[in-house]
Amino acid sequence: MNRILFERGEIEGGVATFGGARAEHVLGVLHGEVGQVLKTGEVGGRVGTGEIVGISRDGGEGPTVRVKVCHDQESLRPWIDLVLAPPRPRVMKRLLPQLAAMGVGRIVLVGAKKVEKDFWGATLLKEENYRPLLVDGLMQSGASILPVLETRRNFRRFVADELDGLFPSTRRIVAHPYGAEGAGAAAPVGAGTPLLAVGPEGGWTDDEVGLLESKGFGRYSLGPRILRTDTATIALIARLGLT
Amino acid sequence: MNRILFERGEIEGGVATFGGARAEHVLGVLHGEVGQVLKTGEVGGRVGTGEIVGISRDGGEGPTVRVKVCHDQESLRPWIDLVLAPPRPRVMKRLLPQLAAMGVGRIVLVGAKKVEKDFWGATLLKEENYRPLLVDGLMQSGASILPVLETRRNFRRFVADELDGLFPSTRRIVAHPYGAEGAGAAAPVGAGTPLLAVGPEGGWTDDEVGLLESKGFGRYSLGPRILRTDTATIALIARLGLT
Repeated sequence: MNRILFERGEIEGGVATFGGARAEHVLGVLHGEVGQVLKTGEVGGRVGTGEIVGISRDGGEGPTVRVKVCHDQESLRPWIDLVLAPPRPRVMKRLLPQLAAMGVGRIVLVGAKKVEKDFWGATLLKEENYRPLLVDGLMQSGASILPVLETRRNFRRFVADELDGLFPSTRRIVAHPYGAEGAGAAAPVGAGTPLLAVGPEGGWTDDEVGLLESKGFGRYSLGPRILRTDTATIALIARLGLT
Repeated sequence: MNRILFERGEIEGGVATFGGARAEHVLGVLHGEVGQVLKTGEVGGRVGTGEIVGISRDGGEGPTVRVKVCHDQESLRPWIDLVLAPPRPRVMKRLLPQLAAMGVGRIVLVGAKKVEKDFWGATLLKEENYRPLLVDGLMQSGASILPVLETRRNFRRFVADELDGLFPSTRRIVAHPYGAEGAGAAAPVGAGTPLLAVGPEGGWTDDEVGLLESKGFGRYSLGPRILRTDTATIALIARLGLT
């Protein structure tokens, strides 16, 4: 954790009170003491610093820490959006914090043909389960703007009817093994927040790529090696320019 | 698995005989039948195709498959080397297959100051434990050249005495949050296989960066976000140009 983030409801009168993993981290890893200043922030809000004003180890549920916060700076902003045909929940669970850390703003999980059908029943898709993973990613990276996660099982309907409204950007890239490679393709024609579409483990179908191309997506390949969806997604985001 | 790899000892008279996870994959995921042709290869050797010539489900230890192989093509070659201050074994275990898949040729794990001391006792460092992870990465990517993994606990001695001999390349990059960002730095002066040095979760010390700089490493930053070592390593390799 490079920045401790609080939910709005945890801050009252300029003081954040928290326990759990964050308190354990502040005390165990950062060797927190009263008077010590930490990097802090509010989920979805501003970031800044916080001074430890109280530590309680009395409770039965682990330590509680109180921090007087001054959140006077804007967070780094998300800079890329993602349409992702999700890998298995176990892989997705590892990927989500990394996407938040890298600065993804909106993640739409889509039901491409080769997505395993039982993915859509995964408990991971409940907000109470995925939100903490996204917050973990933000605490790693130092930013505070929570990515928006949505699901659209009907890929075709989503792309045809909704995509343009949700993503006004015309800088659209679809990851595809048979695409243009390298730097030329890294800066596709178009303007705005880049929108990256990453297919399922088995790849997009020709129809799916065709549909994306009809919406202005340009093909982009990482080269001849076939990478796991999570590796490929991180590599592609890095290629498009982590900022 | 996008290519089934065999150990040299598994191939006799042009026929590979194998069980375990690979056989389960061939039968369960690829719906393998006699006559079916698979992408195959030999670990450390050539790649090509293999035709299923026998399937046995008799054994008590799961199915056995026999494949007549024709390995007549060169594998993709590794194209980058890595000096890495390792994260925790759990993270390292996830990272190793991804490094193999991305085409890393040699991985030297070094004892930078902020590497946790107990890392060096991890069972992961036994070849019998890490080798299958590297082979998994190769089977994902389609290549067959196994990365070499080495450990050097004494970082200073390694860099001062050994690095130049092991890595003749002068294209050397050290990941550092306070470095040049972006495309300019992605093509540092120098020639040969890129050599990337990635620090521990807590970062390199100033001394360590100084030592690397004295050996011609140029600083390179992914930007203001602080990424986990595994995310950063994948992102950096992607930035330097996956080929």
